[in-house]
Amino acid sequence: MSPRELYSQLARPAEGRILLLVLDGLGDLRTATQPETALEKAATPNLDALARRASLGRTLPVAYGVTPGSGPGHLALFGYDPLSKEADIGRGALEALGMDLDVAPGDVVARGNFATADAQGNLVDRRAGRIPTAESVRLCAAINDHLATAPSVPGLTAQVFPGEGYRFVLRLRGPGLSAELEDTDPQILGVPPLAPKASGSSAGVTVERLAKILPVIGQAIIAEPKANRFLLRGFASLPHLPSLEHLYGLRAACFAGYPLYRGVSRAVGMTVANCGKSVAETFAAAASGFGSFDFTFVHVKGTDQAGEDGDLGAKVAVLEDVDRELPVLLAALDPTKDVVAITGDHSTPVPMKAHSWHPVPVLLAAPHAFVDGLPRFTEATTIQGHLGTFPAMNLLGLLLAHAGRLEKFGA
Amino acid sequence: MSPRELYSQLARPAEGRILLLVLDGLGDLRTATQPETALEKAATPNLDALARRASLGRTLPVAYGVTPGSGPGHLALFGYDPLSKEADIGRGALEALGMDLDVAPGDVVARGNFATADAQGNLVDRRAGRIPTAESVRLCAAINDHLATAPSVPGLTAQVFPGEGYRFVLRLRGPGLSAELEDTDPQILGVPPLAPKASGSSAGVTVERLAKILPVIGQAIIAEPKANRFLLRGFASLPHLPSLEHLYGLRAACFAGYPLYRGVSRAVGMTVANCGKSVAETFAAAASGFGSFDFTFVHVKGTDQAGEDGDLGAKVAVLEDVDRELPVLLAALDPTKDVVAITGDHSTPVPMKAHSWHPVPVLLAAPHAFVDGLPRFTEATTIQGHLGTFPAMNLLGLLLAHAGRLEKFGA
Repeated sequence: MSPRELYSQLARPAEGRILLLVLDGLGDLRTATQPETALEKAATPNLDALARRASLGRTLPVAYGVTPGSGPGHLALFGYDPLSKEADIGRGALEALGMDLDVAPGDVVARGNFATADAQGNLVDRRAGRIPTAESVRLCAAINDHLATAPSVPGLTAQVFPGEGYRFVLRLRGPGLSAELEDTDPQILGVPPLAPKASGSSAGVTVERLAKILPVIGQAIIAEPKANRFLLRGFASLPHLPSLEHLYGLRAACFAGYPLYRGVSRAVGMTVANCGKSVAETFAAAASGFGSFDFTFVHVKGTDQAGEDGDLGAKVAVLEDVDRELPVLLAALDPTKDVVAITGDHSTPVPMKAHSWHPVPVLLAAPHAFVDGLPRFTEATTIQGHLGTFPAMNLLGLLLAHAGRLEKFGA
Repeated sequence: MSPRELYSQLARPAEGRILLLVLDGLGDLRTATQPETALEKAATPNLDALARRASLGRTLPVAYGVTPGSGPGHLALFGYDPLSKEADIGRGALEALGMDLDVAPGDVVARGNFATADAQGNLVDRRAGRIPTAESVRLCAAINDHLATAPSVPGLTAQVFPGEGYRFVLRLRGPGLSAELEDTDPQILGVPPLAPKASGSSAGVTVERLAKILPVIGQAIIAEPKANRFLLRGFASLPHLPSLEHLYGLRAACFAGYPLYRGVSRAVGMTVANCGKSVAETFAAAASGFGSFDFTFVHVKGTDQAGEDGDLGAKVAVLEDVDRELPVLLAALDPTKDVVAITGDHSTPVPMKAHSWHPVPVLLAAPHAFVDGLPRFTEATTIQGHLGTFPAMNLLGLLLAHAGRLEKFGA
């Protein structure tokens, strides 16, 4: 029996609510050149106070030595086996999900770029001079108008949705569609966009229909001065994951400013709330929404970004920002029954400027959490903690247990 | 998905090289009568210095409470599941492999003893008075000459290879051979050697052929004054393990003085280098070969031998010898990209005079290893380390990761 099956079988309703604060890429390294980690260096009085009354430990996102992408990293924290087939979600699908699109099972989505071609139809700019978002909004509206009035393609309706800058998403809907499709983006200049082509045996019909609808889209923008072509990549369909509500009866909400994390959250059935991108905005929104959900996921991107940039000072600053705003978030909790956990989806050590495989510090405070009494929340103190080092996908079991949401197993 | 499948799927080439130093039977115990372990008692300034800049932890070779043999102990360190069927290699096969014999898939090998029988053909010495190696060499040559000139047995060619002292190896080659054979060694005196007999249903044909060829071998030595008989045990065929090169693209080399460890290494596709048995000889050979391989396995036998002998002083002396020679080995590494790990294949605690199930200290130093800053490398300090306590078969994943040889998992 997988941990998820076990937890699902034992799940029961209770009053305890769960707050999961993910500081993306939290874990870091001590090395010869970086003797202190960001968590060690940052002044975090509020986090320290929380740590002193919490259980500490470390999560292992996927497996020893394995560096997780953001998708598997978060799915594990939500209790899904990151190595299972169902958890293998393409980045395109996650980003599309994160754009608040209505993507239903069976739909196929692709990431699109507006691009520029010369009079011969050969690409001269794969990003259409990086047109602003407002342009993309206008172009998408023109395309959708054209699609609505052009003769329909049997078995296929298409719609486009503007993204940031030159980016958009194409959604294909119809019976029997397949996402086994090659990119139409040739990745080079001086050639035209590629024709639709199957990458697997299931996509024959989809390619036929796509070959009819892509010219309709093309027609809508062909006379544009810059954005007169479009390129598609990362065809994907919606991942099919049983929701947190289905599995555990958790009404869950996501407070995340970035599309990818909103996408993972939507894939597991969370309500994706509107919130800004700053820590203060995100925490304020989460605090005010907390009472309406059983499970509240709050995401901070800055820690990962600073790690990717190799900027220890920036990582410290984000942690200090988080620490400053933490009381707002914690004030929403009822300390007599609610649970708060703080961790990361993976490590993004400053010296590596990349995601890594190193275990991630985790803190759990709840009425029945063992009080380690450790003075701070760092990579080194968490080695000593009550929670030990454990697979990230088991964290949800601990959260449910501490919220009083798991029955006893066996007589 | 098994860890090995995962690591294999994610493996990519990189410049980082890996050094795995196995101090056989490294782990030891503190008990009422032995208040300090060999690692605690030994003066190891070089190891201490390495420990201070490394991540520490402990490996669990097979499972909690399970004492590993040397085969499973090493296979786990090489990334193979020691509980899998493919990893179940007979000692005979490992020792035969370790003798640098040409053993092909389908061959059957057995360990042989030269023995002495009286005029009635009953055994009086199962080791032929412990004849010297030179005698075994002469006898094997005589047998092979006789086999070459005697009438052939259809479907079977046999050859013998001298070992140390009274020992040799018999190699059987031919279509459809099976290793499901009982020993011909009766383990007692006063009776003749046993006739070949199947131990499983697959060996009927093999027994028929063997019954024809064993008298030919016997004839070659029947007139010898001492070694006038031979006994066979441990029939085995070559284990079929996918190589480290096949799985991870690792060109791997073994520097080990003893046959069993050379055998395990050959079974996983390592190049088995010539090296002496002393620590100094082994380390010098490994250091000079290091640059030609991606993965270098170095084996020290003395720690296990001292443990088996219940000799704490001897174990301390071996560790101090290792410490003295360690700089030679480490000098071969490029500290900006290479990885070194030091551990054991199991514990051989002095108070037990035997292998044991206790976790084994492990040290890992690499550019992106978390620096624990612990002062020494001992059974007790490693409990506090960043690596935690983990299955030995995951060590290879950590080594690959630290060498930059694993892709990120998922988007």
